Amino acid sequence: MKLAFNDELEELARRRGFFWPSYEIYGGTAGLYDIGPNGIKVKQKIENLWRDHFITSSLLNIVEIETPMVTPQRVLEASGHVESFTDPLVICPKCHRVYRADQLAEAQLKIKTEGMALDELKKLYSEKEIVCEACGTRLLDIQSFNLLFHTYIGPFTAESGFLRPETAQGIFTAFKRTFEAERKKLPLGVAQVGRVARNEISPRQSLIRMREFTIMEFEFFFDPDQVPDLDSLQNKIIKIRLSDNTLVVEKMKDIVARGLLKHPWMGYFMASAVDFMEKIGFTADEVTFQEKSEKERAHYSAQTFDVIVSTKRWGDVEVAGIAYRTNYDLRRHSEFSGQDLSVSVQLAVPVTKKVTHVWVNRAALGKKFGKYSVDIVNALNALAESAKEEELGNKEKIILNLPFGKVEITSDLARIEFKEETVSSEKIYPHVVEPSFGADRLLYAVLDHSLRNKEDRRILSLPKAIAPYDIAVFPLVEEEKLVHKARAIFEMLKKTGFDVLYDEDGTIGRRYARVDEIGVPWAITVDEESIAGRGVTIRDRDSWTQWRVNEARLSEAIEALRKGLDLKLLGFA
Amino acid sequence: MKLAFNDELEELARRRGFFWPSYEIYGGTAGLYDIGPNGIKVKQKIENLWRDHFITSSLLNIVEIETPMVTPQRVLEASGHVESFTDPLVICPKCHRVYRADQLAEAQLKIKTEGMALDELKKLYSEKEIVCEACGTRLLDIQSFNLLFHTYIGPFTAESGFLRPETAQGIFTAFKRTFEAERKKLPLGVAQVGRVARNEISPRQSLIRMREFTIMEFEFFFDPDQVPDLDSLQNKIIKIRLSDNTLVVEKMKDIVARGLLKHPWMGYFMASAVDFMEKIGFTADEVTFQEKSEKERAHYSAQTFDVIVSTKRWGDVEVAGIAYRTNYDLRRHSEFSGQDLSVSVQLAVPVTKKVTHVWVNRAALGKKFGKYSVDIVNALNALAESAKEEELGNKEKIILNLPFGKVEITSDLARIEFKEETVSSEKIYPHVVEPSFGADRLLYAVLDHSLRNKEDRRILSLPKAIAPYDIAVFPLVEEEKLVHKARAIFEMLKKTGFDVLYDEDGTIGRRYARVDEIGVPWAITVDEESIAGRGVTIRDRDSWTQWRVNEARLSEAIEALRKGLDLKLLGFA
Repeated sequence: MKLAFNDELEELARRRGFFWPSYEIYGGTAGLYDIGPNGIKVKQKIENLWRDHFITSSLLNIVEIETPMVTPQRVLEASGHVESFTDPLVICPKCHRVYRADQLAEAQLKIKTEGMALDELKKLYSEKEIVCEACGTRLLDIQSFNLLFHTYIGPFTAESGFLRPETAQGIFTAFKRTFEAERKKLPLGVAQVGRVARNEISPRQSLIRMREFTIMEFEFFFDPDQVPDLDSLQNKIIKIRLSDNTLVVEKMKDIVARGLLKHPWMGYFMASAVDFMEKIGFTADEVTFQEKSEKERAHYSAQTFDVIVSTKRWGDVEVAGIAYRTNYDLRRHSEFSGQDLSVSVQLAVPVTKKVTHVWVNRAALGKKFGKYSVDIVNALNALAESAKEEELGNKEKIILNLPFGKVEITSDLARIEFKEETVSSEKIYPHVVEPSFGADRLLYAVLDHSLRNKEDRRILSLPKAIAPYDIAVFPLVEEEKLVHKARAIFEMLKKTGFDVLYDEDGTIGRRYARVDEIGVPWAITVDEESIAGRGVTIRDRDSWTQWRVNEARLSEAIEALRKGLDLKLLGFA
Repeated sequence: MKLAFNDELEELARRRGFFWPSYEIYGGTAGLYDIGPNGIKVKQKIENLWRDHFITSSLLNIVEIETPMVTPQRVLEASGHVESFTDPLVICPKCHRVYRADQLAEAQLKIKTEGMALDELKKLYSEKEIVCEACGTRLLDIQSFNLLFHTYIGPFTAESGFLRPETAQGIFTAFKRTFEAERKKLPLGVAQVGRVARNEISPRQSLIRMREFTIMEFEFFFDPDQVPDLDSLQNKIIKIRLSDNTLVVEKMKDIVARGLLKHPWMGYFMASAVDFMEKIGFTADEVTFQEKSEKERAHYSAQTFDVIVSTKRWGDVEVAGIAYRTNYDLRRHSEFSGQDLSVSVQLAVPVTKKVTHVWVNRAALGKKFGKYSVDIVNALNALAESAKEEELGNKEKIILNLPFGKVEITSDLARIEFKEETVSSEKIYPHVVEPSFGADRLLYAVLDHSLRNKEDRRILSLPKAIAPYDIAVFPLVEEEKLVHKARAIFEMLKKTGFDVLYDEDGTIGRRYARVDEIGVPWAITVDEESIAGRGVTIRDRDSWTQWRVNEARLSEAIEALRKGLDLKLLGFA
């Protein structure tokens, strides 16, 4: 029997506790999903691998922080989200259904519309006939809809706020504190794993388009003049589709050398992202970096690559993005908050430069000009900014034209000095590369990627590192002595540190089918032979091979299996 | 020098990257805090210990799920939060300052006001003079304020929703799916670690009263007629202060036997909570279970104990709660959603009971009474509900008075049968005990509990299981050969799986001071002796003792230290 791959994953996900629509007993809410007991185990293992890969094992200084979802309006004004975080929406004048205008046009006209400006879309709708899918009425009423969830912080309408659409703004607003706690050194990565919310217009794509989801991202702050050591990652082969549609499959160092990336750190984290995707079961070849065109990019980005994998039902899906945010956010937050978020960096080579300095004898100037002294000093400072040495440098006197008249300043009162100064540091706004992964989309993609058929059965061939359980333990039948021994083995393996599932209900065939469907790599069965001291069986999820293994060497055998070794060759079975 | 213990923790937390007010560069938002790079490491270790203690290591079936923060209004109407999740608020008519009315009265009148009804508070304010702290105006305008953060889901005002104030409602609405995925067996624990939001009126107590925070809780679903095996926990001594203020310090089994708890599962999880608190550094004696009085309890609870620890600045603080929610939530969601959330449970002893059954010969009845047959069957069913066997049982005929006249039903057409039936299962709404821990309050409490002074220095004596790093590695001075060796040791220990901090900046004294303040239990220093092959020093955070240890045995020595062993006795030093 051949099973269709259409809603099969969705059906299995609901029945086997991976995910299902939230608030289902109330009819569900579009774009909200619960992650069930087996799903959360896979998701947490993906999160922990991500953390281990990008933070714990990294020799770069990348730290994690946690900031709230609730965000005051002024923060998201500074970030540009209040203005720019919008999607085009179209409403049916007859039945009041609401659609995303670009996606509807794309579906009906079979053209690409991503990143199309509101005016272009309006023109498109006025020229072509695009209709309501429910009642067939022609649609024209296109508006811009802001995707931020709005709320008020404090009693009544004390302060306007939103749920964050990305964790990044919490990182930028906490940059100063974090940078100080981490001893003011660049490069510094600041990561966050947390929930974000986007009030999607009409989400209908399972875990791929959710209104609330988990993001794993970090802002990697660096001095753009420092070129990174590309390290062991330089020979990693990555597959890029440029915004002009050229496909490039080359070593990362060559892609960097060809100048295809706006900064070498982009290449470093793209290669690292491929490494991570391999850990959760994708081959490098299955991962494509799609460059976004200028109009598709977010407002803060100088270059963005979507990390794309293919899914059976939804086709190409973006599971991550690598964006070069430049110093946009730190600059904007400096401007909007009035706090200086620039940092001091050492120059590789000290630089000698001419500096201008206004010297003032305040006492003498005050005595002569009284309350006008302040205006005079301001005028001198303004003059010094644009002054040229040959005109003003160390002159005996300067004539200033001020609102209250012309004044002559002699060099004993004040003068503009021109000096050479050698500086070994300068203030900069660090630049930022942001690798950002969607945990729920990754969960969906790995489940989709792992689902296979064998005979008339379904198998979720999850990589063992992210399987919900390491191993299952069953008594062959529900008989007291078998149950007793199986429970004892279950408890022993659990104490050893394995993630173990115990099940005694129903036939052994149904229990095998269950663990195949939830992706448990191996199942141990206790039978009459086991009671007689002749070991237990271990069954492999993918091949259904069974080995009989000595009970005393069970932990050791599981360790060997987890390392991908052959039990027969090792003499276990 | 003696240091004051007032805002010392707050100052250290900001400077050393534990926590600070969110959006500080914009002046901050009351009740919102960022958890910094050192804070998040401690918090995550607390969360992982919690998960390990209550879920992974438990031999009960307790699973975790994840549900969204955004919650449709109808869910929180069913749960009672839209109606009952309120605090009393009072506004100054002159300066428009807003206060929590009960807390302000408590502070000014020195009386207990928790759980006071709105009318009682109004009476109190009208009788006593309670004034605005800012301008001294007498306050009278008391209102009930709902603490749910409000938002809209979908475009415009499509659907009204809130941020969840507890993760529990996501668990209850997902109960059916989870119960089915877990093979329909009780008891079943369903846990969730996630963010919740409460729009507090005027939060001013650091991490103790936040508007958004992390909760770790589980709903433990059980059949109230099944008495749990109290297990190894039965001899755990717990300290309870009953709502009548009696202090009881006894073994859990004795507290259960005395009937002080509404269900033995309460005792089980209270004892387990003490075990957990011990793992994060509190002694059993430092943990008090404060029973809430009826009016202090939440609307869903039949019995609640706050888990209290003492803090230097904020006094007694509730870090967790154990509530007996009965079957309130599942019943309410069944009523409001129209979905049956009851489950079938086996009876310990099958019960034989009399059942009434209406037997109908539909063909014959239809032939005789035509369209009136339906009314006749309905009338017989109604009669059967209240019927007594001696009156109606197996009679030859029954006379029915129906709107269209009197009819005689002979027993060949229909009869009411009385039988004995043995049933071995029944449908129930499972009862729920909910242990709920505040992750941020626990973080605050352990930091507060660990902060000590030694000479003129501060030490954060965190238990090693929750210290931000296992160990630090320093070169004695910033000299190339020392730096090189120290980096190599750092990388080796990191690969071994230790959580390691590396630091080379500033004097060794300042670096020791830093790791003392962030609570790293041990610091390794590489010096000239190390280059000469004479080992490295390991310094203890609390005693400042130093041992010189052979470099080749470093991992082993750290393992020994982590187990609390003596390096001298073991021959390492």
